[in-house]
Amino acid sequence: MAEKNIVISVDAMGGDKSPKIVIEGIALAAKTNPEVKFIIFGDSAKVSPLLQKFPELQNTCELRHASEMVHNEDKPSQVIRNRNTSMFMAIDAVKRGEAQAVVSAGNTGALMAISKLNLKTINKIHRPAIVSIMPHLYGRYVMLDLGANTECDAVNLCEFAFMGKILAHRALGIEKPRVALLNIGAEEMKGREEIKQAAQMIKSSHINMDFVGFIEPHDIQNGLADVIVADGFTGNIALKSIEGTAKQLVHMFKDAIKKSLLAKLGLLFMFPALRKVKKIMDPRLYNGAMFIGLNGLSIKSHGGADAFSFSKSIENAVHLVRQDFIPTIRQEVENIDFDELQAVMYDVY
Amino acid sequence: MAEKNIVISVDAMGGDKSPKIVIEGIALAAKTNPEVKFIIFGDSAKVSPLLQKFPELQNTCELRHASEMVHNEDKPSQVIRNRNTSMFMAIDAVKRGEAQAVVSAGNTGALMAISKLNLKTINKIHRPAIVSIMPHLYGRYVMLDLGANTECDAVNLCEFAFMGKILAHRALGIEKPRVALLNIGAEEMKGREEIKQAAQMIKSSHINMDFVGFIEPHDIQNGLADVIVADGFTGNIALKSIEGTAKQLVHMFKDAIKKSLLAKLGLLFMFPALRKVKKIMDPRLYNGAMFIGLNGLSIKSHGGADAFSFSKSIENAVHLVRQDFIPTIRQEVENIDFDELQAVMYDVY
Repeated sequence: MAEKNIVISVDAMGGDKSPKIVIEGIALAAKTNPEVKFIIFGDSAKVSPLLQKFPELQNTCELRHASEMVHNEDKPSQVIRNRNTSMFMAIDAVKRGEAQAVVSAGNTGALMAISKLNLKTINKIHRPAIVSIMPHLYGRYVMLDLGANTECDAVNLCEFAFMGKILAHRALGIEKPRVALLNIGAEEMKGREEIKQAAQMIKSSHINMDFVGFIEPHDIQNGLADVIVADGFTGNIALKSIEGTAKQLVHMFKDAIKKSLLAKLGLLFMFPALRKVKKIMDPRLYNGAMFIGLNGLSIKSHGGADAFSFSKSIENAVHLVRQDFIPTIRQEVENIDFDELQAVMYDVY
Repeated sequence: MAEKNIVISVDAMGGDKSPKIVIEGIALAAKTNPEVKFIIFGDSAKVSPLLQKFPELQNTCELRHASEMVHNEDKPSQVIRNRNTSMFMAIDAVKRGEAQAVVSAGNTGALMAISKLNLKTINKIHRPAIVSIMPHLYGRYVMLDLGANTECDAVNLCEFAFMGKILAHRALGIEKPRVALLNIGAEEMKGREEIKQAAQMIKSSHINMDFVGFIEPHDIQNGLADVIVADGFTGNIALKSIEGTAKQLVHMFKDAIKKSLLAKLGLLFMFPALRKVKKIMDPRLYNGAMFIGLNGLSIKSHGGADAFSFSKSIENAVHLVRQDFIPTIRQEVENIDFDELQAVMYDVY
């Protein structure tokens, strides 16, 4: 099969250390993906000198000047109609078909709002979601929604389940992804109404899905499901609890070693083993939260990402474009009978 | 000050390895608390031989036969009126004033239901909550509700904040506990309605509380607050995410070391430093979730607790009885003007 013409649109001005780490990240990603082209949006006075440090990017990168940028403190409502920011222009390139995906390390709310406005929600999907790929003990899983929708009803959760399934298939290569709803108990009567309703809907409908029921957060790590579905509030709480705890443990571990000469010596012996753990758990590997449910791929890099981490969110984008993620999700959603889902919802009551 | 006559009531039949670890746990706790008396409820044919192994307990423990027990799969509605279970009898001893606290490693839902029925909710408090003490990087904090109330309104959250503040003062010795509401963002407009409302209520009312606003889960570990308040669904999700991640990291760490001779050697050197981390993070130290908001102290030990862990939940109970926790909470709640809180709620809209 001939390689597609892959073009990634990049907002060079988003994130704490932009545009420096953005350009360095592109250079890293370009090394392993030499056939991919980039359109870079940003302040050319700042970006151009950085690009010149990487002559190998000359043929794959096109820089387009953006006179303004979205700041972290900007409200989505303020920036949504300003067509002159690097973020807006980068998203617009996807809308116009020049690029297949956009990557930005900028303001999440703004990126979501401008992406929604320009790329529009996929026909039949009510709300887009934020989704990430994360590591469990035996592999990787996808979790959504991570914060786009503070309140969700059962239909929203079903849609997330369906889109998450397609993502796990395309991004992780899992043939039949097991889908679970995040809940506070595994028993049927546990949890909030909308979650119980969503479980009923998935079970009673004809959605072709390996549904494993409810999952509790401490079982995520045991690899019992490949897709974890929650409303945006709950997903965000779980995500930040997981990240916070991992950081705390690493911090305590480092701190204890720093204070002991003997432990430092031990660390030398332990280094290769620990590097293996780091190779799996390094949060930089999982950088790149995707907005799914839109007619185009919009990926949010962590604002504090370094060049390696930013390159991972680009590679993430490239991989999903290669996997035809957006055309697949649009086509498969077309085939779902959401009226049937709604009917099931009313039947439940 | 003369030491009070402290009596702890114990359900010997709850938990995975009962009554063995329960009796061993009592023996451990009795060593450091020789003045405390125990009333033990359980199948005397099983408990009596275990007690005989600890002759030193003869003067401090009284065994009372219970012909039945609550099983893990029992529904609260089934066991709530059965006065013959060891759990019911143990709680009843607190109700009748024979003991000041009850400890059980049995079925959580049953323990909550029987405790509520017998001990009744404190005047002015609408709903009791489940609360635990946990470690952050610089000390300890209390978090509630951990699962008693799947849905909460703003008034419930305010009551949890207030009770949590008293607990942090009495259990952790923090003079002015800082209280925060668990949320997905620190900004005022973030999160669910009831959380925003609760923040308004606390700020506008005369509740004497050091309120630090919203806290995100990854900031819990940085010690920004001493009391973390959430509805029972959110609190349970956060708790299980934290526990699951800690377990995953320890598992991966152990696994990596097991596979490398060099790392095993390194572990020898690192042992003293790691023991310090374990001394802070060992989940057994934090065993004992408390039901607060009731006219009596009811403590749930982890079902899989070992003797050391069970002894910690007893010591937890003893400490809170010494600190006059229940009389204090009753008295301080008496002084809150909850009508004022409600008025604030309506003002907000």
